[in-house]
Amino acid sequence: MTVDDIVRRVDDRLTIAEMLAAYCRVLDSMQLDGLEAIFTQDCVVEFGADERLNARSAAELVEKLGRLWRWRRTSHHLSNVEISFGNSVQASVLSYVIAWHERADGGTATLYGLYRDAFVRTPLGWRIARRRQEMNGSDAGFTVGVFPAARQPPPAGWIAPQIQSS
Amino acid sequence: MTVDDIVRRVDDRLTIAEMLAAYCRVLDSMQLDGLEAIFTQDCVVEFGADERLNARSAAELVEKLGRLWRWRRTSHHLSNVEISFGNSVQASVLSYVIAWHERADGGTATLYGLYRDAFVRTPLGWRIARRRQEMNGSDAGFTVGVFPAARQPPPAGWIAPQIQSS
Amino acid sequence: MTVDDIVRRVDDRLTIAEMLAAYCRVLDSMQLDGLEAIFTQDCVVEFGADERLNARSAAELVEKLGRLWRWRRTSHHLSNVEISFGNSVQASVLSYVIAWHERADGGTATLYGLYRDAFVRTPLGWRIARRRQEMNGSDAGFTVGVFPAARQPPPAGWIAPQIQSS
Repeated sequence: MTVDDIVRRVDDRLTIAEMLAAYCRVLDSMQLDGLEAIFTQDCVVEFGADERLNARSAAELVEKLGRLWRWRRTSHHLSNVEISFGNSVQASVLSYVIAWHERADGGTATLYGLYRDAFVRTPLGWRIARRRQEMNGSDAGFTVGVFPAARQPPPAGWIAPQIQSS
Repeated sequence: MTVDDIVRRVDDRLTIAEMLAAYCRVLDSMQLDGLEAIFTQDCVVEFGADERLNARSAAELVEKLGRLWRWRRTSHHLSNVEISFGNSVQASVLSYVIAWHERADGGTATLYGLYRDAFVRTPLGWRIARRRQEMNGSDAGFTVGVFPAARQPPPAGWIAPQIQSS
Repeated sequence: MTVDDIVRRVDDRLTIAEMLAAYCRVLDSMQLDGLEAIFTQDCVVEFGADERLNARSAAELVEKLGRLWRWRRTSHHLSNVEISFGNSVQASVLSYVIAWHERADGGTATLYGLYRDAFVRTPLGWRIARRRQEMNGSDAGFTVGVFPAARQPPPAGWIAPQIQSS
């Protein structure tokens, strides 16, 4: 890659990372119209096996995510962004989220999740064309059926060592 | 923008993001002198309506944040950085923080918060000239009166759907 | 630095940040072979004073981190990346992690930690040659002896103010 190519690639990375953060801001402020500038009009967004969770357009996503008003407050903390470009107009993006939700009764529901996104560069800029949310886990208060992330099991005969660790 | 302009802008973004992280490191290590390299001398930093929380200079901020010694330990996890440049010497920056605090009795207080910052480029580099902290929420152990972040209420007549979700 | 130098430095920063995220992904998916592309073959990785936690090669690290199968699930949320380059082939990197672990009995163990890394540029790309994990704290469920991060004590005679804060 030429230096110019690297520059454009780096700029694309930062733009995409900021859009992932913008999604969180839109959700936590519930200014859901902002989703239109993040997703393609014909985006497919899947949270879980229950189709009522999912959306097949940006307009449907805006409507569906109104369900977040069921929570008193939310806070979505986005990190671990990994981007791999298919070409200059396509990128596969993985990111992590800690999604904290406060129930109306004051209890909390916290999700430790991932977003798997297909970004496309459109005449308006980068947009999410396809998103799938998965979860590594949650606290007991979170009961929505988000797709579980894959985790490789131990090899046959694996024995736990005597010491725990992170 | 020319390629050179993009390069300088990208470099500024990474510098600012690292300064937000440096603030957290300074707080968690309580090496508060480090704040002088992050804020302007005449910075205005507001945490909440109680003026005793706030500072009108870097020197006052160093003194005020000594209050964090009331906690046994803290850990500030910074993410969701969004930067918008007003011009080449001014930037408005939004970031998120999970601020974990351990009380002397072992209990915890966790804040799910935001920083709204005005950065300025000085002869010494980028500095925070104005900071306002807000919160999306907290656990029950956190009782400090940090400004609440704005959240749009549901439209009149909104009815919660039958399914919860993140 | 020339513009070309800045570009390469910026590109290095993003590459290193993505590798820190890749480490988390490898752990949470338990596809531990992925560690070979993140660490040097002769890496030194230290989690705590108990040598059974630590590894002196990438192969040993792959074997040792099999201990994470003791947890039902994990989620490692990486942020606060600060990079300082010694020269064009060496970088000291600090990052923060919230490491959530779910026990087999459903209880959780959460670590609020740091990674202190020495990266080196090899013919295969950037690799972690030395890593030391430290912790600011944890919830009660996390009992592994990770090194405590340093925190400066208050000056002699310091008196807590009447107000708490983040």
